[in-house]
Amino acid sequence: MTATPRDILALSGGVGGAKLALGLADVLAPGELHVLVNTGDDFTHLGLQICPDIDTLLYTLAGRANQAQGWGLEGESWATMDALEQLGGETWFRLGDRDMATHLWRSQQLRAGAQLSAVTSALALRMGIASHVHPMTDDPVHTIVHTGRGDLPFQHYFVRDRCEPAVSGFSFDGIALAQPNVELMRRLHDGAFRAVLICPSNPFVSIDPILQLPGLAAALRAGSAPVVVVSPIVAGLALKGPAAKMMAELGMGASALEVARHYCEQYPGLMDCFVIDESDATLAAEIGELGVAVAVTSTVMKSRADKQDLARFCLQACGSRQQ
Amino acid sequence: MTATPRDILALSGGVGGAKLALGLADVLAPGELHVLVNTGDDFTHLGLQICPDIDTLLYTLAGRANQAQGWGLEGESWATMDALEQLGGETWFRLGDRDMATHLWRSQQLRAGAQLSAVTSALALRMGIASHVHPMTDDPVHTIVHTGRGDLPFQHYFVRDRCEPAVSGFSFDGIALAQPNVELMRRLHDGAFRAVLICPSNPFVSIDPILQLPGLAAALRAGSAPVVVVSPIVAGLALKGPAAKMMAELGMGASALEVARHYCEQYPGLMDCFVIDESDATLAAEIGELGVAVAVTSTVMKSRADKQDLARFCLQACGSRQQ
Repeated sequence: MTATPRDILALSGGVGGAKLALGLADVLAPGELHVLVNTGDDFTHLGLQICPDIDTLLYTLAGRANQAQGWGLEGESWATMDALEQLGGETWFRLGDRDMATHLWRSQQLRAGAQLSAVTSALALRMGIASHVHPMTDDPVHTIVHTGRGDLPFQHYFVRDRCEPAVSGFSFDGIALAQPNVELMRRLHDGAFRAVLICPSNPFVSIDPILQLPGLAAALRAGSAPVVVVSPIVAGLALKGPAAKMMAELGMGASALEVARHYCEQYPGLMDCFVIDESDATLAAEIGELGVAVAVTSTVMKSRADKQDLARFCLQACGSRQQ
Repeated sequence: MTATPRDILALSGGVGGAKLALGLADVLAPGELHVLVNTGDDFTHLGLQICPDIDTLLYTLAGRANQAQGWGLEGESWATMDALEQLGGETWFRLGDRDMATHLWRSQQLRAGAQLSAVTSALALRMGIASHVHPMTDDPVHTIVHTGRGDLPFQHYFVRDRCEPAVSGFSFDGIALAQPNVELMRRLHDGAFRAVLICPSNPFVSIDPILQLPGLAAALRAGSAPVVVVSPIVAGLALKGPAAKMMAELGMGASALEVARHYCEQYPGLMDCFVIDESDATLAAEIGELGVAVAVTSTVMKSRADKQDLARFCLQACGSRQQ
């Protein structure tokens, strides 16, 4: 038991989550931030184990992410992809020359028997990252997107098919047998966190896989740390990615209200506070009727200062756990 | 049975063999050259199937080899290796960014169940190579170098340890169960070749693995095509690689005579003609006493014309099969 917990837990997918994580890392003391990252997007490609969300977190926290592109490394080169294209190989998933080293190294460690959590910690250390980056599980979980064109592995839907097929639902293969990150669960059990932030990531394909791991949502509910969710939908739009398109296709309408309703219905009693953008302030009353506190601020993170401001706001919004 | 065989078979290791193969490809009609390539150097590294001699052949015949370096592609970049080094990964075997695509593509095809011979043909086709490049076998054969520091896998001896350990012998793991290249054996059986050239490659670690494949030397002996060997030792030196150093360590002295003796003793009745450099002309009589014809020319291939000249000389030196 930690007498006075100082650490912060953030649940995150890729880009949007990584932005808030970077802000949190900036405003917290070194090592106080733990990020639990979705691995439902992970897949084997060209014989390499690719972990898109983990890598986005690592590259972002290391200050090396290509922010304009939204994935991969800044200053990247593409000689291998160009040569692979000349050979007629698969190039729909773009792996940069420097990024390739991450996949080669990680795949080698995994083949040698290391767990993804240990490999991720080692990568973070080698990249000079003080925060703790945890894969949500060391077990294989594969997000499947149910679409009008059939069931698609996530990266086929997301990258190859550019999110074009209309979605009707999602499933997470392997999740029933997956054990949530062991170290993280121990820390949760020990009361190590003073707050839990759910980053502005896609609720359906980034956060749901984490929260649906057996025992994880229950452990969050049982803890004393307040759970604060930042809406990934601002003024009816997703700042990045297909969340808004998915919501429309699922028939729920793309709004911060529907995001709040999703979390309240799927995980009753989990969320204490919902953070929405100023442009959605008119939704505050209706969201409040769901039984959660609502906090309004500017949630659009363009500059480094924006990220830090939102991080500080969320930490202050946390207050204490609702009972 | 081919009535008038036109094709040429060349047995080859890496650099020296590839030079003569390029000369042969230049002076023969497209498709007339078949190269049977050593795969005893092949190994799995970073999860990739690496075939150093095959790649040297492919890159050389495609006109893309880095000739100054002796391996890899010209105009290569090293972003992945640099990034892997920053991660503390294994970088003793240098894989260039463009070269990486070859390994990724081949490894993917092999994992999918394709045979190395089919994958190699496909690579040659995609690189615009008219000659036929055959791996010596589709089965795993691993050259082991016996040294004062123990038994070493070939690439550990050759690249990692830079040929420094003194050698006492060699073995080829898996060779007893390896089937020689099926298409090549069929062509040999059909009498498709008018001559067989053994390139100026390392006798111990490039040519012996090929000739010791079950049935291969016997098929060459049984055929009507003359077998011409080009000495890899010129004036007591190997132009590239550790052949001369190995010969000294094996106690046989580094000379073209000892190379000829090696082939005559190991494969009696196989060699019809031995091609030596002008600088070794004084050895001709003694080599002739081994029972082979000796042909003397300039065997040092610096320019493209040198390669073509040596190729033409070897084809003329072939004459007819000794009986």
